[in-house]
Amino acid sequence: MEKYTSVHDVPDVTALLNEALQCKKTPWEWENLGKHKTLGLLFFNPSLRTRMSTQKAASHLGLQIISMNIDKDGWKIETEEGVIMDGDKAEHIKEAAGVISQYCDILGVRSFPGLINKQMDYQDEVLQNFIKYASVPVLSLESAIRHPLQSLADLMTIEEHKQTDRPKVVLTWAPHPKPLPQAVGNSFAEWMNQADVDLVITCPEGYELDSQFTGNATITHNQNEALEGADFVYAKNWSSTASYGQVINTDRSWTISKEKMALTNQGKFMHCLPVRRNMVVTDDVLDSPASLVLEQANNRTYSAQAVLKRLIK
Amino acid sequence: MEKYTSVHDVPDVTALLNEALQCKKTPWEWENLGKHKTLGLLFFNPSLRTRMSTQKAASHLGLQIISMNIDKDGWKIETEEGVIMDGDKAEHIKEAAGVISQYCDILGVRSFPGLINKQMDYQDEVLQNFIKYASVPVLSLESAIRHPLQSLADLMTIEEHKQTDRPKVVLTWAPHPKPLPQAVGNSFAEWMNQADVDLVITCPEGYELDSQFTGNATITHNQNEALEGADFVYAKNWSSTASYGQVINTDRSWTISKEKMALTNQGKFMHCLPVRRNMVVTDDVLDSPASLVLEQANNRTYSAQAVLKRLIK
Amino acid sequence: MEKYTSVHDVPDVTALLNEALQCKKTPWEWENLGKHKTLGLLFFNPSLRTRMSTQKAASHLGLQIISMNIDKDGWKIETEEGVIMDGDKAEHIKEAAGVISQYCDILGVRSFPGLINKQMDYQDEVLQNFIKYASVPVLSLESAIRHPLQSLADLMTIEEHKQTDRPKVVLTWAPHPKPLPQAVGNSFAEWMNQADVDLVITCPEGYELDSQFTGNATITHNQNEALEGADFVYAKNWSSTASYGQVINTDRSWTISKEKMALTNQGKFMHCLPVRRNMVVTDDVLDSPASLVLEQANNRTYSAQAVLKRLIK
Repeated sequence: MEKYTSVHDVPDVTALLNEALQCKKTPWEWENLGKHKTLGLLFFNPSLRTRMSTQKAASHLGLQIISMNIDKDGWKIETEEGVIMDGDKAEHIKEAAGVISQYCDILGVRSFPGLINKQMDYQDEVLQNFIKYASVPVLSLESAIRHPLQSLADLMTIEEHKQTDRPKVVLTWAPHPKPLPQAVGNSFAEWMNQADVDLVITCPEGYELDSQFTGNATITHNQNEALEGADFVYAKNWSSTASYGQVINTDRSWTISKEKMALTNQGKFMHCLPVRRNMVVTDDVLDSPASLVLEQANNRTYSAQAVLKRLIK
Repeated sequence: MEKYTSVHDVPDVTALLNEALQCKKTPWEWENLGKHKTLGLLFFNPSLRTRMSTQKAASHLGLQIISMNIDKDGWKIETEEGVIMDGDKAEHIKEAAGVISQYCDILGVRSFPGLINKQMDYQDEVLQNFIKYASVPVLSLESAIRHPLQSLADLMTIEEHKQTDRPKVVLTWAPHPKPLPQAVGNSFAEWMNQADVDLVITCPEGYELDSQFTGNATITHNQNEALEGADFVYAKNWSSTASYGQVINTDRSWTISKEKMALTNQGKFMHCLPVRRNMVVTDDVLDSPASLVLEQANNRTYSAQAVLKRLIK
Repeated sequence: MEKYTSVHDVPDVTALLNEALQCKKTPWEWENLGKHKTLGLLFFNPSLRTRMSTQKAASHLGLQIISMNIDKDGWKIETEEGVIMDGDKAEHIKEAAGVISQYCDILGVRSFPGLINKQMDYQDEVLQNFIKYASVPVLSLESAIRHPLQSLADLMTIEEHKQTDRPKVVLTWAPHPKPLPQAVGNSFAEWMNQADVDLVITCPEGYELDSQFTGNATITHNQNEALEGADFVYAKNWSSTASYGQVINTDRSWTISKEKMALTNQGKFMHCLPVRRNMVVTDDVLDSPASLVLEQANNRTYSAQAVLKRLIK
């Protein structure tokens, strides 16, 4: 693999999934693979799980790590071409990417959307410009529109917990007080389209995800109907797509509760974390044995390790 | 040891003290002990000595380190149970602790008090909740009410510099422009109660430390009387306990000066640092050979190393 | 070497240059040299290249790294002597330097000027106080008035690209929207005075660098005249020296453009980065083969490595 930004960069999803599951079994098996190599981690936005799990994965492979909160510890970055840089941005992404490529063998980048202008966000400017100007493989640590390390960890978790060959997986919108990116939802849908599952997506009107991600999924505004017989319930908030980046619905009847889970086929509950308790999901569901959220977070280490293994080569 | 939050977690204080002194002699003797293990360091508050000395200690033991300024680099953490998370806190401590436990083998946590509500602070909520929800040993890097790595380093310093079997140790309040936690004072008193010393504590009215920490110490509001014949003078500011968290006294006659030190038995001066010069202590004392502040800071590396050694096992 | 703060700390500039070029050829040749040793990196200001390249250099030498954004992650530092510390600065540099020296074997410090008071800035207080109170070798990661790791990397780059034994090197001021330090300009001039080059410095009136740095250089306010026949054009903005720390000239005719470069002897373009595109230099120059900016940044790793190698001993 040359880069890791979406499922479309993965030539063989099942092989990568198996590689990640193998990393979980024998994490230290390749601890000399990264010798004398450096992984650069650039954060334009906060990160807990991604930061820690990717560092853990890198240590399993013997990679050196250089981590930066680039906007805070470095300089503000310009992404536009041809601009006269007389504002507050001190460095152009051309130089930033070119320079950092010389210090690192692999580059991870996290950059959230602005949630103001859909078209701009969906061009995924920061990540795409790093790819354009970097001379080393680039890895998304969550971009404006996708979170592929999370999605691979989610796929691992479903693989480990599924009871049938082709489970029913429901991705459901859930309420949240603040506008959030659509990246996790987009990315999960995109990956599920490559997996052997029945994917149903449910959300209120105005929250429909872009069809480039939802593909062949069944889409409905009726959450209860969607949840019927579900094997996995993946809850996630995202901001409106119609009124882009806004919170146009705070209806708490969308919160995943015990009553909602009773509609499922003894379904498992999934969320990428961090999760707002009693907004997105009630305590009794999150604290029940049906919740897989810690397993998902744990799998982040091994999804990152499998991806880094491929990018090292 | 399962955790390290106070002297009460230590089954044998003298043995731990000796272990720390041994670490100082042969720091690299156990450099493979931490192989393939990761120490997570979570900072809710600033840290210089603790951050650097604990990293140094971890490197002596071959531990990997993942360090986070959790509120700045990650998400704001909710600690209350049953709350509807519709405010500014994006992640509950249940998930944070559970997730981070999967990436780390030992977890260090620094969290200062709010200094608004004594009862809340003295429940030591952040640290206790990390212990409750983490699945790995937790280590205090200074909590709302105690600073046990500092206290062990202080005990080492007294052991190295005492001239008599049972020295007189005076913990004295000193003035400071801003309200500070009571953690260092509490913790020092608590540890001295377990050591072979005569402990005297002196402070202005309204600054009396909680008896759960001061134990059998002699307590007086007369600083000069307290200092008479002292072998060690441990100066420290803390905010009022009576008018909780407030500065109700700025009397500079409490500042430790050469005249004050003349009352002692050629006493040594101690402070945990950072110290406000000419508020807490005058330049001539701090810059004199009687000052042990750098020795105390140096011992932080070895107190941390001894504790980490035990927690690894 | 005992410290690395300017070219005057280097007994043999050519030998250090050759050592840096050798590090570039065989970076891992000395990877056990730093075993059991720790490099502390203290940042009072933002840093991208310096942060990453110095970490990379340290890893080549097997040094442990402890990195701190000291004002943000630690405490505000007082540098004045004899002051009553009742303001917002919690720790004196005497203690900070003394303490950190005990955790580190080499100490790197970055501290920019205030650009308010020239006399104060030019005393280079933070760096000089670290040297005064530290008990280990100190390394400048850019101080108020010099940037010697950058200058050594620049010297390497000129050495690698020069076509004649004694090239003509032009240091030219260039416009910028904000007031910047004079450190890079000062330091570059100072190093070029030690090298086998013809140094010409050109800047608008009121921007003349201090003669302690410019030495024997030819100085002119006529940029076009200066550029004639140049082999290397080093562009850099700095704030006014006459109206200290202010922007008194924003004349974009000083921007380095293709037309300006046409005056040179097929000159190479240099800049330390980050660079404001179309303010300091136009896109067509920066994106042309004549630009050496990425090479300069790459050489930062090896200039740092050569310096660290010497300071370890």
